[in-house]
Amino acid sequence: MSQDEILMIDEGLEILDEEECHRLVSDHGIGRVGVTIGALPAIFPVNYTTIGGDVVFRTGEGTKLRAALEHAVVAFEVDHIDPVYHQGWSVQIIGMADEIDPEWGERLAVTPWAPGHRHHVIRIRPEMITGRRIRRDHHHQD
Amino acid sequence: MSQDEILMIDEGLEILDEEECHRLVSDHGIGRVGVTIGALPAIFPVNYTTIGGDVVFRTGEGTKLRAALEHAVVAFEVDHIDPVYHQGWSVQIIGMADEIDPEWGERLAVTPWAPGHRHHVIRIRPEMITGRRIRRDHHHQD
Repeated sequence: MSQDEILMIDEGLEILDEEECHRLVSDHGIGRVGVTIGALPAIFPVNYTTIGGDVVFRTGEGTKLRAALEHAVVAFEVDHIDPVYHQGWSVQIIGMADEIDPEWGERLAVTPWAPGHRHHVIRIRPEMITGRRIRRDHHHQD
Repeated sequence: MSQDEILMIDEGLEILDEEECHRLVSDHGIGRVGVTIGALPAIFPVNYTTIGGDVVFRTGEGTKLRAALEHAVVAFEVDHIDPVYHQGWSVQIIGMADEIDPEWGERLAVTPWAPGHRHHVIRIRPEMITGRRIRRDHHHQD
């Protein structure tokens, strides 16, 4: 990404353009899904892949996560953070989650991490994708 | 944690006890806050520390995150995932977020990553803490 594609905001974070956001998400494989369960927010790490800009991952039978994902608008966040240098990036997707044909999961090789029968495949279609790059704060170097 | 402290659940995930969850959170420094902004879920990575079991981090002036955190019940998730071996753990906290005296931030050395004036210190008091260990699915080795 060239410098002129970066818009600086007052917090000192670089806003990433949509193309860069999609590239970062498609190059990554671990993300976090944010849902609302019983009026409370909840976050779950998932192993995902992308197809045509959609995020696809598998989940188990009867889980709270699966129920919360059914036709719900969810958040999906992917980041890469360097704990030593305090730098990194974070991309956030907002979109509708839906269960799709489990065969897609096999074809996309979305391997679930946990054992058990995880035949349910969830797709999130991004309605909004935003990202920011976090850089070291030179006033607070340690 | 000894084996007899582990309760297996049907998804093949090990449920971690509360003590183990607190230990994992206090040993880590990067987490993700889940909030609701304008009826939509959102996830933000933060650099945090803990004090007496509470999660403390700094945020900027006038951000959407700060507004969403004001006396709100939020999710806070910390995980460690091995992308090669598909193993890891995830701990989730549900609790009330409140702004506290900014001096605490200085004393606790909660360094913000992004530049700018980040004098607002947020504390999440855990009302619920749960965790699980994710192990490799031997039926889906790649």
